[in-house]
Amino acid sequence: MNNNSSVPVGVLGASGYVGQELLRLLDRHPGASVAFATAESAAGEILDGHPLIKADDAPFARAEIVLSCLPHGVSARYVHEARAAGKRAVDLSADFRLSPEAVYGLTEVARPAVADAELVANPGCYPTAALLALIPLAQRGLIDASREIVIDAASGVTGAGRTPRRELLFGEVAEDFRAYNVGNTHRHLAELRASLAREGGFTGDLVFTPHLLPVKRGILETIHVPLTRVLDQATAEGLYDAAYAGEPCVLLTRGAPPSLKDVVYRNRVAIGVTPVGNVRRPRLTVIAAIDNLVKGAAGQAVQNMNVMLGLPETAGLVC
Amino acid sequence: MNNNSSVPVGVLGASGYVGQELLRLLDRHPGASVAFATAESAAGEILDGHPLIKADDAPFARAEIVLSCLPHGVSARYVHEARAAGKRAVDLSADFRLSPEAVYGLTEVARPAVADAELVANPGCYPTAALLALIPLAQRGLIDASREIVIDAASGVTGAGRTPRRELLFGEVAEDFRAYNVGNTHRHLAELRASLAREGGFTGDLVFTPHLLPVKRGILETIHVPLTRVLDQATAEGLYDAAYAGEPCVLLTRGAPPSLKDVVYRNRVAIGVTPVGNVRRPRLTVIAAIDNLVKGAAGQAVQNMNVMLGLPETAGLVC
Amino acid sequence: MNNNSSVPVGVLGASGYVGQELLRLLDRHPGASVAFATAESAAGEILDGHPLIKADDAPFARAEIVLSCLPHGVSARYVHEARAAGKRAVDLSADFRLSPEAVYGLTEVARPAVADAELVANPGCYPTAALLALIPLAQRGLIDASREIVIDAASGVTGAGRTPRRELLFGEVAEDFRAYNVGNTHRHLAELRASLAREGGFTGDLVFTPHLLPVKRGILETIHVPLTRVLDQATAEGLYDAAYAGEPCVLLTRGAPPSLKDVVYRNRVAIGVTPVGNVRRPRLTVIAAIDNLVKGAAGQAVQNMNVMLGLPETAGLVC
Amino acid sequence: MNNNSSVPVGVLGASGYVGQELLRLLDRHPGASVAFATAESAAGEILDGHPLIKADDAPFARAEIVLSCLPHGVSARYVHEARAAGKRAVDLSADFRLSPEAVYGLTEVARPAVADAELVANPGCYPTAALLALIPLAQRGLIDASREIVIDAASGVTGAGRTPRRELLFGEVAEDFRAYNVGNTHRHLAELRASLAREGGFTGDLVFTPHLLPVKRGILETIHVPLTRVLDQATAEGLYDAAYAGEPCVLLTRGAPPSLKDVVYRNRVAIGVTPVGNVRRPRLTVIAAIDNLVKGAAGQAVQNMNVMLGLPETAGLVC
Repeated sequence: MNNNSSVPVGVLGASGYVGQELLRLLDRHPGASVAFATAESAAGEILDGHPLIKADDAPFARAEIVLSCLPHGVSARYVHEARAAGKRAVDLSADFRLSPEAVYGLTEVARPAVADAELVANPGCYPTAALLALIPLAQRGLIDASREIVIDAASGVTGAGRTPRRELLFGEVAEDFRAYNVGNTHRHLAELRASLAREGGFTGDLVFTPHLLPVKRGILETIHVPLTRVLDQATAEGLYDAAYAGEPCVLLTRGAPPSLKDVVYRNRVAIGVTPVGNVRRPRLTVIAAIDNLVKGAAGQAVQNMNVMLGLPETAGLVC
Repeated sequence: MNNNSSVPVGVLGASGYVGQELLRLLDRHPGASVAFATAESAAGEILDGHPLIKADDAPFARAEIVLSCLPHGVSARYVHEARAAGKRAVDLSADFRLSPEAVYGLTEVARPAVADAELVANPGCYPTAALLALIPLAQRGLIDASREIVIDAASGVTGAGRTPRRELLFGEVAEDFRAYNVGNTHRHLAELRASLAREGGFTGDLVFTPHLLPVKRGILETIHVPLTRVLDQATAEGLYDAAYAGEPCVLLTRGAPPSLKDVVYRNRVAIGVTPVGNVRRPRLTVIAAIDNLVKGAAGQAVQNMNVMLGLPETAGLVC
Repeated sequence: MNNNSSVPVGVLGASGYVGQELLRLLDRHPGASVAFATAESAAGEILDGHPLIKADDAPFARAEIVLSCLPHGVSARYVHEARAAGKRAVDLSADFRLSPEAVYGLTEVARPAVADAELVANPGCYPTAALLALIPLAQRGLIDASREIVIDAASGVTGAGRTPRRELLFGEVAEDFRAYNVGNTHRHLAELRASLAREGGFTGDLVFTPHLLPVKRGILETIHVPLTRVLDQATAEGLYDAAYAGEPCVLLTRGAPPSLKDVVYRNRVAIGVTPVGNVRRPRLTVIAAIDNLVKGAAGQAVQNMNVMLGLPETAGLVC
Repeated sequence: MNNNSSVPVGVLGASGYVGQELLRLLDRHPGASVAFATAESAAGEILDGHPLIKADDAPFARAEIVLSCLPHGVSARYVHEARAAGKRAVDLSADFRLSPEAVYGLTEVARPAVADAELVANPGCYPTAALLALIPLAQRGLIDASREIVIDAASGVTGAGRTPRRELLFGEVAEDFRAYNVGNTHRHLAELRASLAREGGFTGDLVFTPHLLPVKRGILETIHVPLTRVLDQATAEGLYDAAYAGEPCVLLTRGAPPSLKDVVYRNRVAIGVTPVGNVRRPRLTVIAAIDNLVKGAAGQAVQNMNVMLGLPETAGLVC
């Protein structure tokens, strides 16, 4: 699909799960095409028709924009190289998410800034779902900071990457379920706190506990929000309707809460809200689901790239 | 294994997942044997060597004790019949869990009462894990009732029974994950509240949200406990060590939190505790795992039966 | 995507797994749109934005072509109604697969006849993979009819439909694997034999054994072919290269044999061939994989529809 | 369970899937106990209560019998050390399976020789199922050697071991299914051929194709046998009944063919037979299932150990 009118895109780090998903999306994109794709140990191989080269050999001049799926700690160096070559970039690692150098690219919240950005830090998968679920409440001052927000999040294994590790073997993961980074030790927490403060003015406490699900892809977060006042079902839903009116990549579910099957292979967050009964103080349960590889990574990167390039925001994406 | 010294056990409702597990356990039990097994639609068939008869034809006289895996609402009637025939009983349904007629059979907590009971109400699967996790804290007055306990629980599909329903098809459940009964609407909540008040004196608020996992068996509960005072790791662990010293069916994990693979096919609860960092008020995350069909149902029923009969408590069980 | 230039398509039987997949494909199709969608028990509901009506109320006049995913035995009646209303049709049931009334729509083999057809019988999922694997050998007279072709086929559970049945529950299928219709009793066998005789002139014996896999989608067939003469690796591959030169929906794998992950969510058959060593008489193992819902059903139906309408053959499809 | 009357057993290679299963079985064995357990990279850790030591430090003198789960190529050396220390041994690797030094321990077939053996070579998982399925036919001369036996075998991932490899990650295996070692290249084939010749006198051709299943444990083999004469259902079943009369670890299924759920966690082979219809020459489909870790490895090793020690053959095993 590399035709005359398509924008050439450089892909750094194409052989992991996120990189493969990004190639898949770009190959189906009506207005973009892969200019080059890098991988380290797989350099020299062909992936879905794209010859893989070393990142050190990346021909940045051939691309109009560069998307990096390189690992945290490695990505920044190559993104800086792309920037030095005069290219705009979307970085999918954590390297720029807390940096003033980049725009934090939660598209629905930062669209105008993304449009003008030279460098976008693509949000982490867990923060993407949590922020889209919490910002509408935070912005209206509805969260009671005297009680903690509790987030139990569960992710499919592609979120842990493709490097062989015993704990990720099928024989270990299948029929199992477990928490990890218990006790507020997950590295996404700083990103989540910073964004929630910046976008929603919320500086209260969070308890965030990730879990490993025996599925390939998908994140579901069950978010327990202490409220400053009672919200009934209709009011709560109305509030999210207003916050996300016209958003193509947000699905607000009614009746049943969202599940992974609402979102996998789609660049969409699905959000459902339920007031909690039989408690003395008001509470809302907000459940948010995304595909960790799409809206949680490669898809949101393409969404941001589209906004940056002035293409239709969902070009090449299924929302 | 029906030998001279074995106790004859009547099994009501043997064809569901819990009933099958119970037959499996009794067939391997060194001191008990199946006197009869009932099933309704499967009556006339042979299950693991046991001819299935209608519950209405149950020959109670042949049994010394009766274990009922009949559905809620149906079980009480047949258990009363067994009692009228002079037999002791363990009821695995919810029918007697809130009734003064029965001893609530959370074995580790109610052992002496179970030993003398004529009728034991076997606890529900979700409450079993939650109570064993919470009672040590509640009994010491460590739970801050001004903030809610939040419980996110996830269960394998055998917890939902064997009756065909579209939402339980492999094509729907595999690669999916979802919450259900959101907003404190699960029927186990009353049982959980009542037991926590009775055994631990805790009458504060709970938020309980069950989820459906794409696994066959196992329950994992991530329990967020607001504390009245700070507990460090060693103190928290010491407290559980003291509470469960000598208990054969309780595993306290160190280092890694418990996962389903620690408990499946075993009559065991695994509990791990972690103080939560980076929050202003003290909190403890308690994670508890059980096999929903074993410690959450058939296994605990056998454990209770053993206590009632004066047999070794773990006879026929793998803890 | 219902724009001026799109062809209106009527969908009969939209609520099963195949029907849902078909709606999904048509919604993304650049040159077609859903004119109406029917379902029986789900009539009145909205599915992916499409109101579901009863098949008896199908407004055939609004469609230019009708695709039927109704069950075997039911479909023929409604397809005849569509034909009586002057509409062309693709029937995805088995009702016309052995009938002279319809063109058998194995697209790669019957493209010219499909283009002119008023009624296309879309092939069954198992025959699609088997025929595309065997026809190149059969047409060249390479199959030794004095020894049987043995086909061991394995399918994901969506191939068994969405009607709740105990044997399809997650609790039964997960961690299991089993054969069914053993002994040449599967209803697809007649279709397979007839097509192999018609297209390849092969009238020898087949042993076909389907298995149920614990996956949602995908079929893999391991096909053991007795040969009339020795074929080495290069010759065997060259023969398939020649047979499928230029075909957009056929992937011939080298090195590793095809696996489900090569084909799921794609309208593609992947085929790999391996000569068998250490046997006295020549043999070739041919392994073929498809997505049962795509190339094995809804995708091939769209491919046929595209051919019938003169649209690009892969419009709306990912191959 | 290390009591006065229990036999001390040395376990070499305890940290892989087979070794762990063996410890689990020995821990529940009423007449045996673990004298020592070795592991290399995990030496120094405690596994299920057993301190792991290096194989080089194995105190053979403390054991009465040694069971080795060491890898192929490594095992022989340590087994020879155990033998030099005067100990009987069961080797679970492939190192002695083709050697005259050891008795090939397919228990049902070689029971008397096993009883007297100093060294038993425990059969491979695939050959165990295939041999128990084929020997009754081979011994009666019923297999037509002018046509090939075709075996399509599928195994759960624990059969591939616990060493981290990308192709065994959950993200790769889940929802996938693929063949490997296509073209008669699996290393178990020599063992299978040799045993079939020795025990059944069959020297005709085999086509053996293993597949990787997305399940944790279990092997199912669909075996297509060309017959020298027609066998109807009753005759075929009668033949297996006669061959395996009184065998505690063989289940002959009627009606439905065996599936993995009939055998997992049990030391059992389940076999079902079906004559093939609609073919010109007589054929029988024999389906055999085992748990690859139990009857295919650790369970059969315990069964052989029991026979060697004069213990009840199924002591410590669930058949």
